[in-house]
Amino acid sequence: MQTKKIILDCDPGHDDAISIILAASQPSLEILAITTVSGNAEIEKTTINALKICDLVSLSGVAVSKGASEPLIRLRETAPGIHGDTGLDGPELPEPSRSWSDEHGCDTIIRLVKESKVPVTILPTGPLTNIALALLKAPAIKDNIEEIVLMGGGTFGNWTPTAEFNIWADPEAAKKVFDSGIPIAVMGLDITHQALATKEVIDQVQKIDNHVAKIVGELLVFFASTYKEMFNFAGAPVHDVLTVAYCVAPELFKMKEVNITVETKGEFTAGTTLIDLHGVTGRKVNAKYGLELDVEGFWSFMIEALKKF
Amino acid sequence: MQTKKIILDCDPGHDDAISIILAASQPSLEILAITTVSGNAEIEKTTINALKICDLVSLSGVAVSKGASEPLIRLRETAPGIHGDTGLDGPELPEPSRSWSDEHGCDTIIRLVKESKVPVTILPTGPLTNIALALLKAPAIKDNIEEIVLMGGGTFGNWTPTAEFNIWADPEAAKKVFDSGIPIAVMGLDITHQALATKEVIDQVQKIDNHVAKIVGELLVFFASTYKEMFNFAGAPVHDVLTVAYCVAPELFKMKEVNITVETKGEFTAGTTLIDLHGVTGRKVNAKYGLELDVEGFWSFMIEALKKF
Amino acid sequence: MQTKKIILDCDPGHDDAISIILAASQPSLEILAITTVSGNAEIEKTTINALKICDLVSLSGVAVSKGASEPLIRLRETAPGIHGDTGLDGPELPEPSRSWSDEHGCDTIIRLVKESKVPVTILPTGPLTNIALALLKAPAIKDNIEEIVLMGGGTFGNWTPTAEFNIWADPEAAKKVFDSGIPIAVMGLDITHQALATKEVIDQVQKIDNHVAKIVGELLVFFASTYKEMFNFAGAPVHDVLTVAYCVAPELFKMKEVNITVETKGEFTAGTTLIDLHGVTGRKVNAKYGLELDVEGFWSFMIEALKKF
Amino acid sequence: MQTKKIILDCDPGHDDAISIILAASQPSLEILAITTVSGNAEIEKTTINALKICDLVSLSGVAVSKGASEPLIRLRETAPGIHGDTGLDGPELPEPSRSWSDEHGCDTIIRLVKESKVPVTILPTGPLTNIALALLKAPAIKDNIEEIVLMGGGTFGNWTPTAEFNIWADPEAAKKVFDSGIPIAVMGLDITHQALATKEVIDQVQKIDNHVAKIVGELLVFFASTYKEMFNFAGAPVHDVLTVAYCVAPELFKMKEVNITVETKGEFTAGTTLIDLHGVTGRKVNAKYGLELDVEGFWSFMIEALKKF
Ligand SMILES: [Ca+2]
Ligand SMILES: [Ca+2]
Ligand SMILES: [Ca+2]
Ligand SMILES: [Ca+2]
Repeated sequence: MQTKKIILDCDPGHDDAISIILAASQPSLEILAITTVSGNAEIEKTTINALKICDLVSLSGVAVSKGASEPLIRLRETAPGIHGDTGLDGPELPEPSRSWSDEHGCDTIIRLVKESKVPVTILPTGPLTNIALALLKAPAIKDNIEEIVLMGGGTFGNWTPTAEFNIWADPEAAKKVFDSGIPIAVMGLDITHQALATKEVIDQVQKIDNHVAKIVGELLVFFASTYKEMFNFAGAPVHDVLTVAYCVAPELFKMKEVNITVETKGEFTAGTTLIDLHGVTGRKVNAKYGLELDVEGFWSFMIEALKKF
Repeated sequence: MQTKKIILDCDPGHDDAISIILAASQPSLEILAITTVSGNAEIEKTTINALKICDLVSLSGVAVSKGASEPLIRLRETAPGIHGDTGLDGPELPEPSRSWSDEHGCDTIIRLVKESKVPVTILPTGPLTNIALALLKAPAIKDNIEEIVLMGGGTFGNWTPTAEFNIWADPEAAKKVFDSGIPIAVMGLDITHQALATKEVIDQVQKIDNHVAKIVGELLVFFASTYKEMFNFAGAPVHDVLTVAYCVAPELFKMKEVNITVETKGEFTAGTTLIDLHGVTGRKVNAKYGLELDVEGFWSFMIEALKKF
Repeated sequence: MQTKKIILDCDPGHDDAISIILAASQPSLEILAITTVSGNAEIEKTTINALKICDLVSLSGVAVSKGASEPLIRLRETAPGIHGDTGLDGPELPEPSRSWSDEHGCDTIIRLVKESKVPVTILPTGPLTNIALALLKAPAIKDNIEEIVLMGGGTFGNWTPTAEFNIWADPEAAKKVFDSGIPIAVMGLDITHQALATKEVIDQVQKIDNHVAKIVGELLVFFASTYKEMFNFAGAPVHDVLTVAYCVAPELFKMKEVNITVETKGEFTAGTTLIDLHGVTGRKVNAKYGLELDVEGFWSFMIEALKKF
Repeated sequence: MQTKKIILDCDPGHDDAISIILAASQPSLEILAITTVSGNAEIEKTTINALKICDLVSLSGVAVSKGASEPLIRLRETAPGIHGDTGLDGPELPEPSRSWSDEHGCDTIIRLVKESKVPVTILPTGPLTNIALALLKAPAIKDNIEEIVLMGGGTFGNWTPTAEFNIWADPEAAKKVFDSGIPIAVMGLDITHQALATKEVIDQVQKIDNHVAKIVGELLVFFASTYKEMFNFAGAPVHDVLTVAYCVAPELFKMKEVNITVETKGEFTAGTTLIDLHGVTGRKVNAKYGLELDVEGFWSFMIEALKKF
């Protein structure tokens, strides 16, 4: 089997953590590195969280590089209301067994993409600062990126009435990615809100008899509690996890080719994605956008994956 | 019965035309004036269309005042793809029997609001330029406006991916209205897309045996054809008509108190309304927003109204 | 002699007041009306100040119309630090003998321009809100405006590091005027700062033995004191007065044809004029810009004018 | 003598080239590295130009690192009208004897600042992209930067009516630098236009009997010719050279402590510096701004320096 070489660029974060876990379970994915970014929490916290999850799933050989501590041009804002103070509240996880790499996250991305014999797929599940920095420093890496499969955006918002958190947190970085010409697949709120870890889903996870699944259960319980409190949702949408699932099981996803651009200048709308579902803008297609998830298929896939640990 | 004094500020436009017709059928509404604005078509066209509809429903005593020919600070754009070249393509209507008033639309609004012994309700169903000009020239009229019941905005767009046409066409005017402190009820795309004149609805209208209903049928047939072509809708949403229906039968509408503001500075998002359904912005309530329509009740109300002619 | 028909659109304001006085002294100018605007002070204050000056120079037949109380889309800000609380601190002037017209300032402009057999010259010496409103309500008046001779803008600022007060106070109105296609002559800070009422100038004015000159002297003394305090200037620049002088004695002014546009979107630069002296923008000429004043000639002209009262 | 450790961050460019030459002549300056940026010409050209100048003045031990090829978020634009197609038209210089470093310019800055036992002074004479990238990747380097002495900005513009080229070319980078809290000294157009290489100055340079001075003469002749053509100047202002002169001979400069910020959002004014000379903004001091140059002293200093080669 041909494996897909991937870089996980993330800000763990509950759903980022589960993404790493899912990726670790898939023999068809080769994780080249995990790069971290400030987002759900400050950069030290998201990096430590990534290292903890690596320990949990025995990814000891995978480099974890600390990336951007702040957005390209805006002030940093984090999301403790959703992910808790540590960025990964809920389960008790041991302190990481190692530290992060000496290399900045953006440099790890540049180096690995340059070195790879086959094009690399990048899965950003936080603000897009590291990807933007990599493109700024080494524009030529575009030619060896297979696809960017990212979580971000939506036809509606969660952090403001029109903006989703990842894009909102660094709109200029996001715009640079969408304008780059690299093939992009986008898991936005329209599809991630279909992937709701409801009580029934959590029950299934909790029945799996291994340590990793136990931790995932605890992550989902905490995540569901904050979503209940803030948005009155019947479960937590496991946003980021869809990027990994899409790489392995694209048949679960109904995608549409559209133009997506990012507002960077608005007074109230900075970070809003304009997803041109009806072709009203005349701008040309630059992304595949996730419309519909095979919800049952997705959760079966997840449960099977967790049973492997 | 206490009648409600209303001013129809409109850009006919198929749904504006049906709004005027519906208003004319309601004994509980006293139409003080019809003021027109550039929007669906240029100002001369929307004004002539308003006059033609007045003739159709015998509103000979109601002043029709031509208002703003262009937005406050932007270039004018119209919507011939939706409403045809005349702004009211479809039925053949005789030339109007009279001309418009000498008074500018914004001055008619100012004068009537100042003169009225009871607070006046204004129903804008086009860009909000006239209302903004009236507020600019005579801020004190705020105190004698009962409510502004407007069609505009939405949590998604129709003219751009995020903006609805009326607000998009004059965002600065819209912002002034939303910031004015006047009580506002908003029929946005979220609710107007529920009021779809489907084939079944049009059949019912066509069965009514009077001239006005016949014209309304022709308006709906044309309107449905352009919505089919541009958006692949199964019928035409009669957006503007909901403002009149709300004044007479508010029990058909489930509204939510929210903050609404308008983006005026975005590169791609000018004219986008930010409707804070989940209270994430911390901005205080300034409008009632239409969430859910009793669809059956609404069409029964419409059919009964048309039977009166 | 053919007189020039002018409308003074102003926000008195010390230099506006002296402009009215200068205009009243000139037989070659026919003042059709004085329209007021919020600017140096709130609209009631600037209107009362205009009426007081009319009484001072016996302009009893000239309509004074109160205009815009706030900018097109921004919040009102005034300049009490420069003009005092009344907008015209310094001399004691009797309460006005009459009130303002019933007509809004913008409507007076529209009416007079429409009625005039010969094209009218408009001299705005405050924020350009009234002119913008007139153009919004009646775009066709453009064809009967000879020229707009305005005080505003500069290659540097006085209210912010880059913006002059009149343009800064209503940038959107100013942009509309500069984009209108009407012939425009601009007295910006580059030339108005040459017209400094120094101690020597004030001495000359104070030696003139009539009541009007005495009042002008008092206006200049107060104005010079605030300019000394805020900008450490050796005298007060009589900005607005240059518009009237230019209408009568254009030979005192070295003008350059340039493109001028107005920033309306900046975070720090809204209201900044871009005066393309070196033709670097490629935008086409839309104004004459005042570069150099015959300073001695100007003050001689002023002194002679004041002696006539 | 205590030497000052400096990094020259530049986009040669005629005046950048002369800056390097001047720096090389000064025993009190230790050049840690030269980092290049896209600006006057594309990054490959400015880097090759830097290498050529290093050869000219025997700076073989100084690392030359290629930096940013494009601004943080905007499209790249260069200035061939001023500096010719190569970025350094005029003299014939041999191809460089070596290539640039493997390290990106921003990483060279980060490394050298981190490694240095004493605080480092950075002299940016092009767009500020490298400095911004360095601050993004390693915010902590701020603590070991003595001062940033930059050429950029002005109370008027050269590239637009209000913006100077270096700041205009990457406004977001410039804003990040001005907002960084690092001590900053600014050579803006107000002072660099005083440093005019007139015919008399060029004569003096041409009389110096060494190869370096001969090349400087040729650089000045070309530079003066484009300034004559584009701005009708009587000589070329050697903008960038003032940064080096200031480090060695600050007594030639009259500076003022002011607040400087950069417009990044304007439609026409992006890249405009707001230099608050009169303290009208209330924003606190973050820079020293060059007001007045001892012109004679400056040229004496230059001539003496060139004689040393
Ligand atoms: Ca995430
Ligand atoms: Ca309408
Ligand atoms: Ca004034
Ligand atoms: Ca340079």
